[in-house]
Amino acid sequence: MRVKGKHYRTICMKGTSVFMIDQNLLPFKFKIHKCDDHLQTCNAISNMTVRGAGAIGAASAFAMAQSFSDIDFSDSFKEIEKAMKRIESTRPTARNLFYATQRVFDAAVESADPLQTAVSTANRIADEDVAACQSIGIYGEELLHNATNVLTHCNAGWLAFVDYGSALSPIYTANKRGKNIFVYVDETSPRLQGARLTAWELFHENIPHAIIPDNAAAYYMSKGKIDLVICGADRIARNGDVANKIGTLEKAIIAKEFRIPFYIAAPISTVDFSCSDGTKIIIENRSEKEVLFQSGLDEHGEINKIRVCSPGSSAFNPAFDVTPAHYISGIITEKGIITADENGINSLLDS
Amino acid sequence: MRVKGKHYRTICMKGTSVFMIDQNLLPFKFKIHKCDDHLQTCNAISNMTVRGAGAIGAASAFAMAQSFSDIDFSDSFKEIEKAMKRIESTRPTARNLFYATQRVFDAAVESADPLQTAVSTANRIADEDVAACQSIGIYGEELLHNATNVLTHCNAGWLAFVDYGSALSPIYTANKRGKNIFVYVDETSPRLQGARLTAWELFHENIPHAIIPDNAAAYYMSKGKIDLVICGADRIARNGDVANKIGTLEKAIIAKEFRIPFYIAAPISTVDFSCSDGTKIIIENRSEKEVLFQSGLDEHGEINKIRVCSPGSSAFNPAFDVTPAHYISGIITEKGIITADENGINSLLDS
Repeated sequence: MRVKGKHYRTICMKGTSVFMIDQNLLPFKFKIHKCDDHLQTCNAISNMTVRGAGAIGAASAFAMAQSFSDIDFSDSFKEIEKAMKRIESTRPTARNLFYATQRVFDAAVESADPLQTAVSTANRIADEDVAACQSIGIYGEELLHNATNVLTHCNAGWLAFVDYGSALSPIYTANKRGKNIFVYVDETSPRLQGARLTAWELFHENIPHAIIPDNAAAYYMSKGKIDLVICGADRIARNGDVANKIGTLEKAIIAKEFRIPFYIAAPISTVDFSCSDGTKIIIENRSEKEVLFQSGLDEHGEINKIRVCSPGSSAFNPAFDVTPAHYISGIITEKGIITADENGINSLLDS
Repeated sequence: MRVKGKHYRTICMKGTSVFMIDQNLLPFKFKIHKCDDHLQTCNAISNMTVRGAGAIGAASAFAMAQSFSDIDFSDSFKEIEKAMKRIESTRPTARNLFYATQRVFDAAVESADPLQTAVSTANRIADEDVAACQSIGIYGEELLHNATNVLTHCNAGWLAFVDYGSALSPIYTANKRGKNIFVYVDETSPRLQGARLTAWELFHENIPHAIIPDNAAAYYMSKGKIDLVICGADRIARNGDVANKIGTLEKAIIAKEFRIPFYIAAPISTVDFSCSDGTKIIIENRSEKEVLFQSGLDEHGEINKIRVCSPGSSAFNPAFDVTPAHYISGIITEKGIITADENGINSLLDS
């Protein structure tokens, strides 16, 4: 996707170095962050320099590949397995992370040249992510007519993947095909990924949009201003329940109340077939500091952090929630739009 | 109510000076602001040094009383009438303001000692606000059992009134009676009145609470962690529809989905009998800057403003929404808990 007219991927690997757009500096500063070994990449995942399902998938694949360069595995893969555990512990709710590390590991340990195979497998995972997101855009675009008003929550744009994105990919495709789409962008407290990342992407892609407080979605729905909701997914259970950014459940419930279609857009790799339903998904509780403080650009153009909440009070900060399948009109995947039935989404993917 | 163990009212008058807690500095600095004449009090209302329905009502009553001290009315009340217009123009949508100025003016001009009568009438208005809020606390307290978990949105605490508050008054009463109440405090983006004012009040009253992102309410409801929702009201229509801070509608819808009782707490003066239903209520759209920027305490202990959203994007900022009566379990008033039926709330108040 484009930044100031130039094409970028969110994350890529050259040799055994990983390069990524530093998402902690966005939208205020655009900077490429370089990770020279798997520990640096682990750190970049856990401190959210890179974030979003697909981008985390690629990052963990790259970190896994890097570990074959960092660690002497001539005797055994024991230390590599430890590295895998370390990578997997960076963001325990992210499904793609486990898929990516396992796939790189399995391919590498079977190979005569583990490092070379790990690197090429990781790069293939990144390329597959790009292709899947592109297909999601093509299938999802059919849901968007000219002058459709879409609400989206958090950032499931290209910054959350390697390119194109999931929830925003249909919007980018529709825009390229000449449809006028307007996007209501939930600010997505506490980390404001909507107001920062989604708005930043849409601005650079020149797509009309407005940031709204998370509190305002029901108001605009009640006024008939929103035609469709599209959100991303962090993990999808076998029965079609979806774990995604905190607040997704709330948007799904109000969309149902106003009879507005509510779609999830995600590559099939987001489906965790080992997870029977959403109640099995463990929700990550993050630091209260993300709620109590906000960072942004001060009057001198510097990124500064301020306390926005009352001193003395503490905060809860669950990072995700689970939206039960019955709230979801469909899941836009790279193989088409699927809907969960009483058998879940399993059979539909098989057919 | 207490601040560092000492009793305060949000606003009071001594002689002809008005003293108020400076709410523009809260929760970071606690300072009493003094207004020596009605022009200073007008200024304090319009720049939101004092805010909240009941507190604005008392402030405008005090300003009206001050005008009888500031202005020579020995020939006529013409200049006093001009002062009344000036007071009423400070926050033109606040209902209590017009009620308060009219009542002080009418009592004073009929009296042999207008200044003395104006002052005593204004003080009576403030005392009535306190008594109404206290009654709301007593009626609402019956809804709270030991170990009840309450969700509240925005600030309808004592800072919005002269004392006790509306939505928080039942919690203060229950706490005094030895019940353990835990309060989930919606941060209430974009102005964060929950995270700043409600949290500040609860901290000083020593009531267990946690600030949560606005996005997290449905999550905690889905986990069975919230037993009851209590919010305030800015205006109540004759049919029981309630205009309140943006996001109230969203909380009401999700509460209904999880079968959690959703209450509004407000003095009867909040009911606008000239307004048939919520569709007649005009929603104020405020500056996008309230969404794009946040202020708070920087590392040097100074209050600073930063841009938190992506530069180049604009924002929408509706200040209120309307919750239809059918989502509301009851309205806690100083005369008891009332529920709208097909005749609205009119008949219930009469009986």
